[in-house]
Amino acid sequence: LSADARTRSFWHWGFEEDFPDEAARGALAQMATALIPELGALRAVPLPRVDDAKLREPRIASQTPPRDRIIHAGGKGYRDILRAFRLDFAHAPDVVLYPERDEDIAAAFELCAREGAALVPFGGGTSVTSGVTYDGKRPVVCVDLGKRRRVLDVDKTSRLVRIEGGATGPDLEAQLAEHGLTLRFYPQSFELSTLGGWIATRAGGHFATGYTHIDDMVASLGMLSPSGAFETKTLPASGAGPDPNRLVLGSEGALGIVTEATVRAFVRPIYRASATVFFDALPRAVDAARAIAQSGLQPSACRVLDQNEALMSRVSGSECALVLGFESADHELVPWMDRALKLAVRAGGVLPEPARHQRGDRERKREGAADTWRSAFLRGPYLQSALVPYGVMVDTFETACTWARFESLDREVRAALEAELGRWGGGLVAMRFSHVYPDGPAPYYTFGVRADRGRELEQHDGIKRAVSDALVRAGGTITHHHAVGRLHARWYEGERPAPYERVLRAAKHALDPAAIMNPGVLLREE
Amino acid sequence: LSADARTRSFWHWGFEEDFPDEAARGALAQMATALIPELGALRAVPLPRVDDAKLREPRIASQTPPRDRIIHAGGKGYRDILRAFRLDFAHAPDVVLYPERDEDIAAAFELCAREGAALVPFGGGTSVTSGVTYDGKRPVVCVDLGKRRRVLDVDKTSRLVRIEGGATGPDLEAQLAEHGLTLRFYPQSFELSTLGGWIATRAGGHFATGYTHIDDMVASLGMLSPSGAFETKTLPASGAGPDPNRLVLGSEGALGIVTEATVRAFVRPIYRASATVFFDALPRAVDAARAIAQSGLQPSACRVLDQNEALMSRVSGSECALVLGFESADHELVPWMDRALKLAVRAGGVLPEPARHQRGDRERKREGAADTWRSAFLRGPYLQSALVPYGVMVDTFETACTWARFESLDREVRAALEAELGRWGGGLVAMRFSHVYPDGPAPYYTFGVRADRGRELEQHDGIKRAVSDALVRAGGTITHHHAVGRLHARWYEGERPAPYERVLRAAKHALDPAAIMNPGVLLREE
Repeated sequence: LSADARTRSFWHWGFEEDFPDEAARGALAQMATALIPELGALRAVPLPRVDDAKLREPRIASQTPPRDRIIHAGGKGYRDILRAFRLDFAHAPDVVLYPERDEDIAAAFELCAREGAALVPFGGGTSVTSGVTYDGKRPVVCVDLGKRRRVLDVDKTSRLVRIEGGATGPDLEAQLAEHGLTLRFYPQSFELSTLGGWIATRAGGHFATGYTHIDDMVASLGMLSPSGAFETKTLPASGAGPDPNRLVLGSEGALGIVTEATVRAFVRPIYRASATVFFDALPRAVDAARAIAQSGLQPSACRVLDQNEALMSRVSGSECALVLGFESADHELVPWMDRALKLAVRAGGVLPEPARHQRGDRERKREGAADTWRSAFLRGPYLQSALVPYGVMVDTFETACTWARFESLDREVRAALEAELGRWGGGLVAMRFSHVYPDGPAPYYTFGVRADRGRELEQHDGIKRAVSDALVRAGGTITHHHAVGRLHARWYEGERPAPYERVLRAAKHALDPAAIMNPGVLLREE
Repeated sequence: LSADARTRSFWHWGFEEDFPDEAARGALAQMATALIPELGALRAVPLPRVDDAKLREPRIASQTPPRDRIIHAGGKGYRDILRAFRLDFAHAPDVVLYPERDEDIAAAFELCAREGAALVPFGGGTSVTSGVTYDGKRPVVCVDLGKRRRVLDVDKTSRLVRIEGGATGPDLEAQLAEHGLTLRFYPQSFELSTLGGWIATRAGGHFATGYTHIDDMVASLGMLSPSGAFETKTLPASGAGPDPNRLVLGSEGALGIVTEATVRAFVRPIYRASATVFFDALPRAVDAARAIAQSGLQPSACRVLDQNEALMSRVSGSECALVLGFESADHELVPWMDRALKLAVRAGGVLPEPARHQRGDRERKREGAADTWRSAFLRGPYLQSALVPYGVMVDTFETACTWARFESLDREVRAALEAELGRWGGGLVAMRFSHVYPDGPAPYYTFGVRADRGRELEQHDGIKRAVSDALVRAGGTITHHHAVGRLHARWYEGERPAPYERVLRAAKHALDPAAIMNPGVLLREE
């Protein structure tokens, strides 16, 4: 799957080499019980062995080795990990292809049309919304972009880079570093997910303000659809008709395969400023974040952490926090950070001792709270997997809403979640803002609860349903950056304008007349 | 047409009361000859009188007074003004409706379907690309949104305002001012054009960097299509499927009528900084603009003016210029402006005497070069109209391209334009950047030439064609913010991805099954 020397796990997040060992898992379980006393005593069941997995016979001619079919069976949401942990691969594809040329992709389209198969495009396979899990009746051909991961062109003057759709975060960063450039796009799946996947799912990136979604970074893109190549022109901006890039952004593999894109890169930042401000109550931290989001200062990090989130990430023992970061390749950041801190203090924030505050001049130490936070952030999904054998369910959900609606949304979502967790002995709820906009935040919730062993999927379904109903009722979107996939389909259908379903269906019919592309995503399978 | 006490002209830009009087027009003609000696002696023909206009009998039952039909006959590009000046109203609509309620709009849809008529949505009627000029065979019903111009809701916390589609710039600014808010969206058509029109045409606004198009300001919108209401949810951001707002943005009346939108407002800025930096050659000014556009400083104005543009706008007698502006409701701007000036000087710019440079602290005089520029900017279209009786053709075209491509684009566009103007004795070419992005500028060209009296449309057509071919060949978009309309159709068809035409046609069929909406725009009439 990967040019990486590491081995992709068949069940847990990421690479086998990076999975916590038994001692580390034990320590993690202890930490979890300390954080969530309701979990009680934890006992691990043995880890699954891939050799024990039973795969059905391929329904169409296939030379794909079983392990490849297993690895492409799903994404990396809690449900996917749980099913893989149980060695349930009923949904594994029949064939996995690794096309190198456009002709190979066209051949995959033809194969699917001929065989009545579904085609599931596969980038990093990190979907947490069942975006790569086809569970319907058709045979499945999975098309993995892993052989298309090069940076094709670098225009340093315009800071534009043309990159193949299958390039992962580390792939493209390594190639861009040779030119002194960086994409600075760090979704939590950074190590595994791909540019094509980010575009297909409208992933959310590194910057907490300003241009945050991959949508804003795309100058042009190329998608291969069963009806032919969909290639947009590389332009800094245009006002010519409805933006064709925006049809592909968020198309989730249902219209075609994103084979490349020209994206806006940055010169590597050399000035950094970071600080953490503490608050005795969440509403004050929220006010601070709002003031900063509306100030025009555009911090790269502006992350509110509620008490549990601050505790989990070891930022604070008992307070809420606001993690602020600025970065620039061009100028010192002292006035930016000073002003942001003034706004935070005015909202009721308490500044830490000066040592923990980097003002943003070049000479000071460059790695700050924001960077430390990022490393832990990228490690997070391993912990979710590592708790599965202990029967602990940890998962996240996210949304965005206006500032005016946040307070009631937060209340209603917590109420729904706590009621649901209460059925399983209670658990932990933590919230942070992943991104902030002048008109509202993107709240990101994490919960942990004792899993109902053997019935985890039903338990998860109940929680997911209650929380999603609550957040949509309270005025949030069903997803700020996790995409729709199959998991969010029901709420997505309520969120989009009614006539837009007809438009999407018509667009799909125009680009994918045989309806082979990722069926069930965006539109119900007909 | 307007709650405004002023009278909309039947031929020239804007209001009769604001048109230059005979003496002012004479002075303007003298200025034009001074700037463009090739024009030679200018002699004005008499202005047209609306009573001399002959209108064909309406092809469907109509109670619309002739003057209303005349005023809705077209937009305000050079071609529209010329046709109106000649009293050519062959393309006037048969009926003009001013719906108050959604039901009235639905009735207009029904009327058109029944009568086989085309429906042309009309906001401010300021299209410069024949966006409101239906010249085909069907009868025409024009739907003017002039009775829907209210601000409906103000959410000060989230800085979101819900506004009806027919509100003009002054309409909505007056209503927002009561709440201390402003949209700060100033297309050159500001006084007449409407929020609905801005959205339908993806208008470009006030800010030279960052969020420049109206696209970025829209949190949600409502469009009435013949297939029903298309209403999106008010969200700061979402990752749920292809963004439905983006289908409406740029739809140019071909899918429905934009009846309202919730847009991102600002608190009125209290800090301003502005400065003009001079350059002895265009490439250096371009380098300065690029450095600033890529710096992350995000000035509100970053306008490169070539020598002729600087001369016309009286910024400089013989040099190129870079007009810089910063504004904020939150903080002093000294570090921002200081850094931007440093970058401009490093690229070869010369700073003016200190008196002309406002550093951005609160106490100093608030109106700067950027504001003066804006007043003249909004007045510009009157001058274009006023020169028509003198047989002077002044028009503009605009594009966007990457920084790497700008030099050759500029060269090729000027060559094409000068060759074309040479056929008419030569003329003036001026260029400015209307907007700049990290990956490229939006160059805006103005030309002036002696009109070939009686054959102005053919002459204009030749110029438009040569220049548009050149800019598209050189890697530019056919429009950064003037939209496609009917004038840009041929180049737009080459710019969009081939399969996207099928998608748009399918989308149109889904929303407008009887194909009544603004036929010929975005898609050729079938």
